[in-house]
Amino acid sequence: MDDMDTDPALRAFALNCTLKPSPAPSSTDLMISLIDDALRPHGVTTSTERVVDHLVKHGVRSDEGNGDEWPALRTKILDAQILILATPIWLGNPSSICRMVLERLDAFIGETADDGRPIAQDRVAVVATVGNEDGAHNVAAQAYQGLADVGFTIAAGAQAYWVGEAMGSIDFNDLDAIPKKVTQTIGSLASTAAHLARLLASNPYPALSR
Amino acid sequence: MDDMDTDPALRAFALNCTLKPSPAPSSTDLMISLIDDALRPHGVTTSTERVVDHLVKHGVRSDEGNGDEWPALRTKILDAQILILATPIWLGNPSSICRMVLERLDAFIGETADDGRPIAQDRVAVVATVGNEDGAHNVAAQAYQGLADVGFTIAAGAQAYWVGEAMGSIDFNDLDAIPKKVTQTIGSLASTAAHLARLLASNPYPALSR
Amino acid sequence: MDDMDTDPALRAFALNCTLKPSPAPSSTDLMISLIDDALRPHGVTTSTERVVDHLVKHGVRSDEGNGDEWPALRTKILDAQILILATPIWLGNPSSICRMVLERLDAFIGETADDGRPIAQDRVAVVATVGNEDGAHNVAAQAYQGLADVGFTIAAGAQAYWVGEAMGSIDFNDLDAIPKKVTQTIGSLASTAAHLARLLASNPYPALSR
Amino acid sequence: MDDMDTDPALRAFALNCTLKPSPAPSSTDLMISLIDDALRPHGVTTSTERVVDHLVKHGVRSDEGNGDEWPALRTKILDAQILILATPIWLGNPSSICRMVLERLDAFIGETADDGRPIAQDRVAVVATVGNEDGAHNVAAQAYQGLADVGFTIAAGAQAYWVGEAMGSIDFNDLDAIPKKVTQTIGSLASTAAHLARLLASNPYPALSR
Repeated sequence: MDDMDTDPALRAFALNCTLKPSPAPSSTDLMISLIDDALRPHGVTTSTERVVDHLVKHGVRSDEGNGDEWPALRTKILDAQILILATPIWLGNPSSICRMVLERLDAFIGETADDGRPIAQDRVAVVATVGNEDGAHNVAAQAYQGLADVGFTIAAGAQAYWVGEAMGSIDFNDLDAIPKKVTQTIGSLASTAAHLARLLASNPYPALSR
Repeated sequence: MDDMDTDPALRAFALNCTLKPSPAPSSTDLMISLIDDALRPHGVTTSTERVVDHLVKHGVRSDEGNGDEWPALRTKILDAQILILATPIWLGNPSSICRMVLERLDAFIGETADDGRPIAQDRVAVVATVGNEDGAHNVAAQAYQGLADVGFTIAAGAQAYWVGEAMGSIDFNDLDAIPKKVTQTIGSLASTAAHLARLLASNPYPALSR
Repeated sequence: MDDMDTDPALRAFALNCTLKPSPAPSSTDLMISLIDDALRPHGVTTSTERVVDHLVKHGVRSDEGNGDEWPALRTKILDAQILILATPIWLGNPSSICRMVLERLDAFIGETADDGRPIAQDRVAVVATVGNEDGAHNVAAQAYQGLADVGFTIAAGAQAYWVGEAMGSIDFNDLDAIPKKVTQTIGSLASTAAHLARLLASNPYPALSR
Repeated sequence: MDDMDTDPALRAFALNCTLKPSPAPSSTDLMISLIDDALRPHGVTTSTERVVDHLVKHGVRSDEGNGDEWPALRTKILDAQILILATPIWLGNPSSICRMVLERLDAFIGETADDGRPIAQDRVAVVATVGNEDGAHNVAAQAYQGLADVGFTIAAGAQAYWVGEAMGSIDFNDLDAIPKKVTQTIGSLASTAAHLARLLASNPYPALSR
């Protein structure tokens, strides 16, 4: 492996957008754990939450009130330098939970930190995607667009994904072994995401004077 | 304006994916020139080419032979630190020329530089989009996905766009004035793209040892 | 107006995928009511429900149990010959509620009626879309793909939409008047959808012998 | 097989949007020929052209002049009751040739037949898609949206597709056998498309009085 810079230590936070509450097994969780393994030697510690385990309200504000549990997830996103948006594929698209997360992140567009800069700036986003068949490129497209719009920077080669053959029904969870190309992609993703997040943590985007 | 770091000097290269050969006027050219103006104070010099003015062959290799003029454009892309992928919208999508460009960029996936690293790495991509109505977010989605897949890094807020009201027919070229929100977006895009490209130029992604 | 065939009487059912529970005003409701007005002279009666007013579970089965209120909405879909999938736009995409509806409709792929034919066949789908800016074509793309995949037929010109200028913030609800092009589109949509639904009601798709 | 209505005889026309000129082998051609075989017992005769074999100009008008060979293809489209839009997948999207075809079809929006009705009305569109990996649902989404926008009706289950496992490189042409699910999908597509095209040929959409 390359000679890695692991200083400063970084945090990654993975939002698992599966439709299935815990403790149902989740192929998306498997992909997150592989990314976690790959990020660790780069000095990145990963934590994760399943969105569906929390009472997240529909809306486009950072707090929709009435017991909305999004604010706690939002804090975890902002406490990390890397966001892993992880979703299964349904009908060739990211899950409705993933779209709900992007809607809640929409609030970032209007929010600034104490220094006047957009609140999510200097954070890097990557995408983890699993499905029985087809849809990963479309998931990346939707995710990158939403995440870049609300202020994240997208690392080169920022998606790790697996889908089976057309109209297949095998789960990523049930593969005998992780395909070598998936492992390579995850390795590359971890390296680029950690490098980029570390650069931006030490050299934040400049403030805008409007 | 913020106190800008303009060292080292950077180059941006804009590919205009309009369907119309020169010298027909192009709203996409106007958007490129606005981005050029905004990048200059950040120490970035921009050049541009209309793809349709060149004999670019269909294909997914870096040189399709038989007088293919893509190789010259490809050299300009690799000579710059920032790629501006600029396209009009047709039927809610990037132009067929823009898709042709992405297909030609697909070859980058298999190409490495002398140091073994992916050839497009350390380069930043932004997207410029104009249309009579609707489709800009979809253009960003497709462009970000293709560009990140072939190795570019996507800056936060990396799209400058304008479209009119639903089913409208006004051209960006014919507006009385550039809307303030467009100007602000371009200013922000220029600032983030220049900062990110400068960071990556001085601190390239590490090589992968596979 | 053309000499209309209004026999047999038909039913349309509109699913409003707004994020806002009743009685909050919904621009999507306005679009539905305009379509209702346009369908009536064609012998079509329209009813509507806001999905978010019901306890619809996440999932891909027709009944997810535990108080899931999707089965009642599903019955209304199957009782109608025309489905109006109506959604606001967020970040250039259909709402998370709309994606949830498509996920629940996914169950139709495996379900057959008593005669062995796919359960949703012979039904026509149209799409109603409103947003402050941009995204209508992408909404149509996602909606058509999901709806055709689960068995609906898509009428020619099956989308009625309105969005404002780029980065605008005006609501469809707040327009002084409905733009003429929107009215024309709705008129055309109503005519084609009613004609097609009537044809398929009288001449159902043949059964497949596998 | 079901008792089929094969009267009146119908014509299908397939546009192959491969990037490769004849006589290079095309997986997309194989998918077209399978659909041809499935349509024939339904009384439908299919012809096909590779777009890239013709000098089709970029543009959005029905004739771009200067030797533009689109008008001949356009005539074949209008002479058929079923359009088969057939495309390979590149970077998870329809080919640039396919987008060029949709751009040329855009002209249909403003064109009417002698009876004042939109020129493409009463025609049915289906989609044929092949790729090494991933992207078929996105191709369907883009194709359905463009085709419905310009006046085609989309049959239920209107896509036949094959893609391999994630990051795979096998061609459809090189499979040992056509997967059973692909064959079933093609059989269903042929049945619904023929039925719908026959219905609309005998019972055209009514004229609109604006």
